[in-house]
Amino acid sequence: MQHCDTLIAPRWCIPVEPAGVLLEGHAIIVADGRIVDLLPVENALNRYQPSVLIERPQHVLIPGLVNAHTHAAMTLMRGFADDMPLESWLRDKIWPAEIQHVSAEMVRDGTELAIAEMLTAGITCFSDQYFFPEIVAETAVDLGMRAMIGTPVLDFRTPWANDAEEYLHKGADLVHDPYSGHPLISSCFVPHSTAVLSDESFTALRVTADQLDVRVQIHLHETAAEITASMEETGQRPFDRLEKAGLINASLLAVHAIHLNAGELARMSEAGVNIAHCPRSNLKLASGIAPIAKYRAAGINVAIGTDGAASNNVLDVLAEMRLAALLAKSAAADAAAIPAPEALHMATLGGARALGLGHAVGSIETGKWADIACIDLNTLHSQPVYDVCSQLVYAAHSDQVTDVWVAGKHQLDNGKLAHINSDNVLKRSNEWRERFAAQAGMQ
Amino acid sequence: MQHCDTLIAPRWCIPVEPAGVLLEGHAIIVADGRIVDLLPVENALNRYQPSVLIERPQHVLIPGLVNAHTHAAMTLMRGFADDMPLESWLRDKIWPAEIQHVSAEMVRDGTELAIAEMLTAGITCFSDQYFFPEIVAETAVDLGMRAMIGTPVLDFRTPWANDAEEYLHKGADLVHDPYSGHPLISSCFVPHSTAVLSDESFTALRVTADQLDVRVQIHLHETAAEITASMEETGQRPFDRLEKAGLINASLLAVHAIHLNAGELARMSEAGVNIAHCPRSNLKLASGIAPIAKYRAAGINVAIGTDGAASNNVLDVLAEMRLAALLAKSAAADAAAIPAPEALHMATLGGARALGLGHAVGSIETGKWADIACIDLNTLHSQPVYDVCSQLVYAAHSDQVTDVWVAGKHQLDNGKLAHINSDNVLKRSNEWRERFAAQAGMQ
Repeated sequence: MQHCDTLIAPRWCIPVEPAGVLLEGHAIIVADGRIVDLLPVENALNRYQPSVLIERPQHVLIPGLVNAHTHAAMTLMRGFADDMPLESWLRDKIWPAEIQHVSAEMVRDGTELAIAEMLTAGITCFSDQYFFPEIVAETAVDLGMRAMIGTPVLDFRTPWANDAEEYLHKGADLVHDPYSGHPLISSCFVPHSTAVLSDESFTALRVTADQLDVRVQIHLHETAAEITASMEETGQRPFDRLEKAGLINASLLAVHAIHLNAGELARMSEAGVNIAHCPRSNLKLASGIAPIAKYRAAGINVAIGTDGAASNNVLDVLAEMRLAALLAKSAAADAAAIPAPEALHMATLGGARALGLGHAVGSIETGKWADIACIDLNTLHSQPVYDVCSQLVYAAHSDQVTDVWVAGKHQLDNGKLAHINSDNVLKRSNEWRERFAAQAGMQ
Repeated sequence: MQHCDTLIAPRWCIPVEPAGVLLEGHAIIVADGRIVDLLPVENALNRYQPSVLIERPQHVLIPGLVNAHTHAAMTLMRGFADDMPLESWLRDKIWPAEIQHVSAEMVRDGTELAIAEMLTAGITCFSDQYFFPEIVAETAVDLGMRAMIGTPVLDFRTPWANDAEEYLHKGADLVHDPYSGHPLISSCFVPHSTAVLSDESFTALRVTADQLDVRVQIHLHETAAEITASMEETGQRPFDRLEKAGLINASLLAVHAIHLNAGELARMSEAGVNIAHCPRSNLKLASGIAPIAKYRAAGINVAIGTDGAASNNVLDVLAEMRLAALLAKSAAADAAAIPAPEALHMATLGGARALGLGHAVGSIETGKWADIACIDLNTLHSQPVYDVCSQLVYAAHSDQVTDVWVAGKHQLDNGKLAHINSDNVLKRSNEWRERFAAQAGMQ
């Protein structure tokens, strides 16, 4: 008998890789934070002596969901300004509130709310873009959450930095210290959009990113207005400005990427650019519908993001992948487009690859970190079960997530957060609500 | 002190009528199944002596959600055939399974599963279209659910009837007996679509519907293919055939109504036709996106339907109204289109009106039946709360529904079904699963 930390015995397991596989009656063996074996449960019980045995007889185990794009701290602004177009939403509501309130303390509390919400929804890794990224990293480490920490890069002053040089400098610090090599934390640069950086700053960004070997994320072609404004100001589409700066490459995660012409699509495919699709935010801000079936057919890796709670209003990748599958069918006028297994792939391994973490997480495979979510399918709205993956994608709610492990650590245990005090998180969220509401003249 | 059956004291109440109102600290007084008062909680406690006092200090009370279009018994076929276009989905999967399995027993068990699911999701009234409508009515009465029972009308044989004359005859029987005047049950005729009835049968349907003073529902202009096929077979669009039969009137509920030309839209507005919008089903079958902001601007009453679980795959009006609000913004290219209060209106009073029940349910008003849903907003993904209605529409899950009353009867009590044994329902659902799967050669 071999010792292991955890033996999980669900009814079903969808490992995602290899594709199309549904395992029934298999056990997942976890040791030292990693998946060390995946085998029929009777063999597992003969071979392994676990410290903890978790039986989930009506559940399906999947790789932890990956939220490829969010602004975690903005969860404190959930529902702060709804039913407004993107430009005025940002200019009249979000930015004035941020100028007033963004601080290390706000980022810590907002990120903690977001992580608590994401863990309960089966998310084990998120890619964040916000100010005070060092606080986001610290909070993720404290709470045991996997995170890709995006350092903002802007040409103007915010509560965190003064100009592009300072943003890049602070971002470089973050890569080296204190989280260099931490198993849960990776870093990247996140210029907000091409509107906020000069060509010189983009070039400086590329040089720094290359030197540090870190990836870049950017909101790209989210709205038609963004493209029109860029044409008016620079005579170029945002894509072309990135291309000239040498940023159209396999290290780029293009967020939204709704409005691509045929040439841009071909170039992104050729260069191996990844796309983070945020369907609910795109609908809510009326930005458009990204034709992801077309992107997938072109061989582009598509990940799923929730965007920030201020434009969503929940951090729920399960709901987001369902919407992605549904919208893709409509956009392609083909009910067979993005079938359930492909949607699940985008929300797991597709997300991991988009963040450069495909070797480490995103599927239930021996050797990968044990980032795992477990979903109870024995609810009224998930029965009967003809096809497990289909039921997961088209019928399951995030409330059915019972268990989550991040690097083998049991973070959600039978529906309860194991290491986060939700009452404290909600109490602090409400204190922030009072401050934001007062500033905006709300009740 | 006046006696009453139930005094409910939630933190908030959105009565829907009058529009735009949010009450805080108000109590709802229920007696003899009806709402008899709505007043500040301190006054209520001085004036009423309730048999039952229900305090819900972190919850919002809303009118029970109305599911304006479903096929309840098909819940047994949830996920039976996903990722397929409408025509082959029906012809190759759904219809062969129905021919084999539809029976009074199947309709009872499927409807029971659907009602259990709907009650837990805050739905207090559903409009059903399926075979054996007398069994649907009987099941709804047994379980205490409000239902609009649609009698199918077809020109061909099914397990329930042989031809249009027999369908109409059986439908007329249902109107008169045994549910005539039952407070929970109403009836209407539901020809499946114009493809399945001759002009003569439509005329007979109109005469019978007029004589009995019952309403008509029909799948109308769900797909572009439906219109093309009608043009090829009859030289007319489905809408024109209904118009000629005298069926374009205020008693009509047009289900889906995705593809309307300007003239049809104007006529529907003028005639007071209601539309049942089923956004998730429309996306999943790639039928198109109904531009409901345009319909609402034309003054058309729009209701929300889930359609059947075989094409959705859940009966969740809360999720459906969120998707309706989001999709409408995208379709209108206007993030301000269908703001949260309008989405909630469609899912409650709009639904009630579409079923001819606007006088009886759909809002929390004195004199109406106490059809009420209560939603807990104190969850990680619903906090903080800046705008209650917005939070309800854009962030709340059906799992947050804690309580439901139908005609004053407490059907969901603090998250538990009070009068339905879920385990039995799930057991029978799984027996049906085995039969459906065996017939389809699935595992």
